[in-house]
Amino acid sequence: MSSSSSTSSPAETIARAAREAFEASQLVDPEKRNDALRSIKDVLKENKDEILAANEKDMEAARPLVESGHLSSSLVSRLSLSRPGKFEAMLSGIDEVVALPLPTGKTTYSKELSPGLELYRVTCPIGVLLVIFEARPEVVVNIAALAIKSGNAAILKGGKESVHTATLLNELIQRALGKTEFPSTSIQSVATRSEISSLLAQERYIDLVMPRGGKALVQSVKDQTKIPVMGHADGICAIYVDDEVDEGMVERVVLDSKLDYPAACNALETLLLHETHLKSLWPRLAESLLDSKIVLHLDPSTYSSLPESTRSNPLVKQAGPDAFDTEHLDLELSVKSVPDVRAAVDHINQHSSHHTDSILTTSDAHSSYFVRGVSSADVFINASTRFADGQRFGLGTEVGISTGKTHARGPVGLEGLCIYKWVLKSNEKDGSVVGDFAAGKGKTYTHKDLKGKEAPF
Amino acid sequence: MSSSSSTSSPAETIARAAREAFEASQLVDPEKRNDALRSIKDVLKENKDEILAANEKDMEAARPLVESGHLSSSLVSRLSLSRPGKFEAMLSGIDEVVALPLPTGKTTYSKELSPGLELYRVTCPIGVLLVIFEARPEVVVNIAALAIKSGNAAILKGGKESVHTATLLNELIQRALGKTEFPSTSIQSVATRSEISSLLAQERYIDLVMPRGGKALVQSVKDQTKIPVMGHADGICAIYVDDEVDEGMVERVVLDSKLDYPAACNALETLLLHETHLKSLWPRLAESLLDSKIVLHLDPSTYSSLPESTRSNPLVKQAGPDAFDTEHLDLELSVKSVPDVRAAVDHINQHSSHHTDSILTTSDAHSSYFVRGVSSADVFINASTRFADGQRFGLGTEVGISTGKTHARGPVGLEGLCIYKWVLKSNEKDGSVVGDFAAGKGKTYTHKDLKGKEAPF
Repeated sequence: MSSSSSTSSPAETIARAAREAFEASQLVDPEKRNDALRSIKDVLKENKDEILAANEKDMEAARPLVESGHLSSSLVSRLSLSRPGKFEAMLSGIDEVVALPLPTGKTTYSKELSPGLELYRVTCPIGVLLVIFEARPEVVVNIAALAIKSGNAAILKGGKESVHTATLLNELIQRALGKTEFPSTSIQSVATRSEISSLLAQERYIDLVMPRGGKALVQSVKDQTKIPVMGHADGICAIYVDDEVDEGMVERVVLDSKLDYPAACNALETLLLHETHLKSLWPRLAESLLDSKIVLHLDPSTYSSLPESTRSNPLVKQAGPDAFDTEHLDLELSVKSVPDVRAAVDHINQHSSHHTDSILTTSDAHSSYFVRGVSSADVFINASTRFADGQRFGLGTEVGISTGKTHARGPVGLEGLCIYKWVLKSNEKDGSVVGDFAAGKGKTYTHKDLKGKEAPF
Repeated sequence: MSSSSSTSSPAETIARAAREAFEASQLVDPEKRNDALRSIKDVLKENKDEILAANEKDMEAARPLVESGHLSSSLVSRLSLSRPGKFEAMLSGIDEVVALPLPTGKTTYSKELSPGLELYRVTCPIGVLLVIFEARPEVVVNIAALAIKSGNAAILKGGKESVHTATLLNELIQRALGKTEFPSTSIQSVATRSEISSLLAQERYIDLVMPRGGKALVQSVKDQTKIPVMGHADGICAIYVDDEVDEGMVERVVLDSKLDYPAACNALETLLLHETHLKSLWPRLAESLLDSKIVLHLDPSTYSSLPESTRSNPLVKQAGPDAFDTEHLDLELSVKSVPDVRAAVDHINQHSSHHTDSILTTSDAHSSYFVRGVSSADVFINASTRFADGQRFGLGTEVGISTGKTHARGPVGLEGLCIYKWVLKSNEKDGSVVGDFAAGKGKTYTHKDLKGKEAPF
């Protein structure tokens, strides 16, 4: 009767329904998941006008907020589903997921423990996912498709800016699931922020929380829950230009990493230069960066190595105390010189967000040192940091990027929504018991590799 | 100057030292990890007398606590290193870890993104582990060996009962590491509980917390930290006896699961019987269970199916409201009948702790349904729940059992202490940039499988 029980109760109902949907869906033939995805695509297609009308409501509500400065115009542009091709791209995203191989039911370990007793490790879905995301409403469709393909249930919470669109998309997805063997509550959505806090307390029913958004969102979620969090956090990505380098690639790779999409989490934020480059390569590179309107935050050595004519450019600044711990997400770059690859690795391990860091070098010894030493999800050699992406990696649609150190790391595809179970099967007439393996009881463990033998299910 | 900063500061120092040790150790040839393990074994062997003397101090401190009822005698017996063979077993545990294959540096994915640009996923250590355990002091050596073998750094906190032994073991391990290329701070220990609370706040430096102990310890750790927790929690394990079953195995497998080691987390706690067995199999099985001095907590159907002569046995009880949510860890068993395999799966998903559950059946359809439906780490067919163990599974030494749904599940071996990094290598003279893949720029993603090609490091 208290206000707290009246707010927590709907969250528990939703979470329990998701758990039950997950459990029921395990008993449906996994091959039917693609049929469910096609059914969702059909229903969305049939209701395009209704969806675009709901989206227009969200856009209308957003416009005054942009004018008053409460919402950014870039956020509103991500909100729109009516831009040419956007709706169709959302639907073809479903086709892409249909085309991916099933991530579950794969045998990844098989061993005979003793004759007649066989152990298998088989991939399976995690269970109930809580996905929290910001503006883009098509994420509802994207995550629903990934969750269904991997056999998970999902509870989705979008930004309040996209509430009309997201709510309708979810209704349509549930309507489509209603025509299949999968429970329609396999995918549910919630609309208000207060529901999130209550859902984060449902550790009995929810197995994984995925906040897709900035560092603040990830931190706030971690602060509130005991459920494991797979965070798609910020990216303070660095490039280290080694002393042994093919100078022709430096400008090309640095500019691509910085300019291709400066607001992305895999964009370059920190440039580390071997000090041998201060005299010649660096002044030329600085001019190119400035030509591209990039603000440079320079440590004392890189600053003082520039000629007065360059230093007088208003885009050239001396690095402040936080320059190397800042994700600029804009046309800004922090630059520093280091005496060797070891110092570069040390700097990156201390300051990077363990997302993506790249070395430019011709030295196998230095690249090997860098790869072993840098404790980041993605460690690149002579390549732009912008390659850090599930599509580019060939993983298919990505769930997001994880900078965590457990479960999944870097671009996370369908595999990241799966775990495994151990299946032990006795083929002995009177079953298998550990007592038979006690000293003098005759049985011994053979632990014979079954060389990829598939679990018989 | 405040008391909070004076207590938190040592924890930060320890955690930062562990992080630095981890980073430095990544640059040591992984093949040398076994030398470090052998060095530890030698130092422990040389100092056996000193270790046993420290252990005797712990035992002396414990005895009055046992007499006054503050400590259990079973805990004290686990504290002792002087039982015949115990010290030698601790040392041979190191040999076992030496014999295991290196879990890091394995290429688990390799793909050509485009000609000259190759992506690898390579296993690597997680980073800094915080391991919290209870009485047994030899866990220090066991965990240190696993951490070193996998390339992680570890901070260990044992029970206060084993503080003298654990502190000395850690000193000796550090002395041994001092003779190697690995930092001696790769393994550190802390002695007091207040240090744990402060360490749980060091999410900047610590990557994974592993509480090895009861459910209360795991819950208390989860309550206090934002660091991922790999929990080795309780086990409410069930066996379901299907209607289609080879009756000869039932008593054998049930008794083994319950009696082999009743205090273990993989011991049987719940027996689910298909109702067809209430008339004949169950009354006989009940007599065997009672002969073994097992207290039976019976639901109405299993209770009323027993003859009065059996019901009058004082070990026979009617199940209380919590009977099926209780980890007895003793000679007690909760028993219930169910109408079919579906009801068994539902019961297990609601009440089990997702540790290990087993079906006894001759029906492939029922075992397949059970395996797919039961959402537990280990799902067995016609086998004792007691097989749920890293050694028995052939994983080598186990870190523990995880009932979580992410990262690692069930018995966790060295693999559970590893994650991966993505390594992208461009062999192109002018490096690789995403701009070259833009429309009309000529390059396209080939995503060609490199069929297990090893990362060149």
